[in-house]
Amino acid sequence: MKKCDVVVVGGSAAGITAALTARRHYPYRTVTLIRKEEKVLIPCGIPYIFGTVGGTDKNLIPDGVLSDNGINLVINEVSSINCKEKTLLLSSGETTSYNKLVLATGSEPLKLSIPGLDKKNVFFVKKDIHYLKSLLKRLGSVRNVVVLGGGFIGVEFADEFKKKGMNVTIVEMLPHCLMLAFEEDLCKEAEKKLTSRGVNIITGTKIEEILGEDTVTAVRLSDGRELKADIVLVGVGVKPNTNLAEEAGLDVNRGGVVVDSTMQTSDESIFACGDCTTKRSFITDKPSGLRLASIAAIEARIAGTNLFKIQRNNPGVVGVFSTAIGDLVLATAGMTEKTAKEEGFEVSCGYAEAPDRHPGGMPGMNQMKVKLVFNKVTQEILGGQAVGGPSAGEVVNTISACIQNRMKADNIAVFQIGTHPAVTASPIAYPMVNAAEMANIMMK
Amino acid sequence: MKKCDVVVVGGSAAGITAALTARRHYPYRTVTLIRKEEKVLIPCGIPYIFGTVGGTDKNLIPDGVLSDNGINLVINEVSSINCKEKTLLLSSGETTSYNKLVLATGSEPLKLSIPGLDKKNVFFVKKDIHYLKSLLKRLGSVRNVVVLGGGFIGVEFADEFKKKGMNVTIVEMLPHCLMLAFEEDLCKEAEKKLTSRGVNIITGTKIEEILGEDTVTAVRLSDGRELKADIVLVGVGVKPNTNLAEEAGLDVNRGGVVVDSTMQTSDESIFACGDCTTKRSFITDKPSGLRLASIAAIEARIAGTNLFKIQRNNPGVVGVFSTAIGDLVLATAGMTEKTAKEEGFEVSCGYAEAPDRHPGGMPGMNQMKVKLVFNKVTQEILGGQAVGGPSAGEVVNTISACIQNRMKADNIAVFQIGTHPAVTASPIAYPMVNAAEMANIMMK
Repeated sequence: MKKCDVVVVGGSAAGITAALTARRHYPYRTVTLIRKEEKVLIPCGIPYIFGTVGGTDKNLIPDGVLSDNGINLVINEVSSINCKEKTLLLSSGETTSYNKLVLATGSEPLKLSIPGLDKKNVFFVKKDIHYLKSLLKRLGSVRNVVVLGGGFIGVEFADEFKKKGMNVTIVEMLPHCLMLAFEEDLCKEAEKKLTSRGVNIITGTKIEEILGEDTVTAVRLSDGRELKADIVLVGVGVKPNTNLAEEAGLDVNRGGVVVDSTMQTSDESIFACGDCTTKRSFITDKPSGLRLASIAAIEARIAGTNLFKIQRNNPGVVGVFSTAIGDLVLATAGMTEKTAKEEGFEVSCGYAEAPDRHPGGMPGMNQMKVKLVFNKVTQEILGGQAVGGPSAGEVVNTISACIQNRMKADNIAVFQIGTHPAVTASPIAYPMVNAAEMANIMMK
Repeated sequence: MKKCDVVVVGGSAAGITAALTARRHYPYRTVTLIRKEEKVLIPCGIPYIFGTVGGTDKNLIPDGVLSDNGINLVINEVSSINCKEKTLLLSSGETTSYNKLVLATGSEPLKLSIPGLDKKNVFFVKKDIHYLKSLLKRLGSVRNVVVLGGGFIGVEFADEFKKKGMNVTIVEMLPHCLMLAFEEDLCKEAEKKLTSRGVNIITGTKIEEILGEDTVTAVRLSDGRELKADIVLVGVGVKPNTNLAEEAGLDVNRGGVVVDSTMQTSDESIFACGDCTTKRSFITDKPSGLRLASIAAIEARIAGTNLFKIQRNNPGVVGVFSTAIGDLVLATAGMTEKTAKEEGFEVSCGYAEAPDRHPGGMPGMNQMKVKLVFNKVTQEILGGQAVGGPSAGEVVNTISACIQNRMKADNIAVFQIGTHPAVTASPIAYPMVNAAEMANIMMK
């Protein structure tokens, strides 16, 4: 039997970051990462394999990050955990003991109960190189692609497929694409952009059936229409991989492997992080269904640090993310006005927009729009959205900082920003600050 | 005599923002902005008039921002203030009364005592359209330009002049360009970039004399060398415009018009903001010499709000700013390791770098480097620097948020960032978070 000090199961964002964090905080402990994949895909980069990046091999997390940091890499599958003896049985038959174990087993695509989903050329967003390679190969010879789901993943895949010249249609059940993350007006803006790029969008509509013999040929919609489809790509969310934990007797619920705020599972020698775990909201403390690589990495930084001494607590998920449709970047942090109201908050919102360069004639200018949502009672920020050019992807991180520090509108209205003609909005018009000022005045 | 409720003197970043803020917070008060300039230049955009933007008329703050918000614009010069009677005498001979007055009189270029600075074709960075137009015109027919001062302004002017094909040399007294804002290694990186773009740099050297008959022909350096110069551009800092305040009997010192943390002057009906006022450091509470449009705007947001009811306090200047040399963006917030040590702090620094896209093959990728400086005793962040592509200009605002909230290394190490392949670094490698983690571990 191999004896290991720290074992991490899973090699994506959570697993790698947990292993790195364990090495940083406990440099005298040996750390072993066990994963089943020969190579690991950058999860958020998967849609870009099909257009911008141009192939699976250009979207890999380099193993150098492990070897450079003295982490032992084992490519194998963990079949079972014996919590009492603190050992792992690998599918190769070997046994490995651990002192502390980190589960970062991730998630897998959610499958809806739509008839025909098992037909050939229906693809899911699996983090599996061979699978995605076969999709990439299949794309070369087809014309009509239907994307089932207009969330981030669906939208990004659709935009990339379109770059390859295919006839692409998104079918979304909700009234708009991206509706779980953005206010309605921004969803409309995103849809307008997608449409201008040639992507067809059908919203408020379900797919009732996948048609065809063995292979998909069309989909039938809830309004009775049929759409030709050579390929169907399903991107409707994920569910946590909890089998290993469940079979080991750890507490597991529908949200994943149950962890406390230290990322410890029901077994004190076992921690878990990333898509496989339960999550709570930073703002409401209620269970959260958000699963993002950035959340996985932060949870891993908490888990890895706490292995031999509890030092960090998870304050809950803020939920910060971005997407890009061509040169339009949409980013969100925390709650939208809609979700805040649904949670029973009395809200006050502020809105501002300005060119993200000054003067506007500076190269690379995009219009930046920012909306901030505040709790009217406490004046604390609940969320915000930034839409504009590439810099929106970092502006939302400043908004996230405001949320994490529970800043009030009055403080954000005098936020000390740095500005420069070539890279930001002007100090007079800086949208985040002005949006806070507008909300602040309305709350007086 | 004209009767006004709120009068703002000065029409640049501070003046405009103070007037806007007064209107927002006191919608029933009339606000009048008096400025002497027919048109107002975007101050930070001035270097870009000479290359990227291509003319003074493309670098104006539109007056629409005033008229759209119901602010009366008066183009005139204020000759004197009578604090007792609360009246202003204008150079046109008219008198205007005020209920509350905001001084936003700005700054003017510092003049060194170098012989020959009064010769023809020696230019200063004046916020004056006609003056800058004459420089622009003169540039058309010359070959050799010497830039005196290698700070932000000097570096930006040099880079823009070079775009016009001139032979440009920066002469800087300190060992490196940008040394007041950045650590030495980043200054070297900036110098390397400038050199690669064809700008000559002479550091650790003073200009002893400006040579020529009426018109400059060369400069003599402290090492005895002479450099040919058809034009000399002096960018060595500014001094506050305090004459008006001083003659009115307000407290004024070398740092400017004296204000308290509410931006009130020694006269309770008169507030002041921007380049003309005294400043204190957010971190040390000592007087600060920093003058930036972004600081001016924030001070104006405080002053404008406090006019009729004190509601906001100035916590002191963090100092957040960026510059760009071609596609290299350098940004800084708060203290550098060097300045922190000079102030007597025991510091711990963290450093990390990563591509600002993931995978690195995504378009527009630049390497992003972040250094964070912490107080070793309290673990609180004192400052940080970000160097990379355009997004560094917003990353530094997230660092600024951390400073303003006095976040500790351990908290920034689990900062909830949003990441996306097309616009940010990966969640595993995000430089700000990793830099905090590195510092955190060193402080244990």
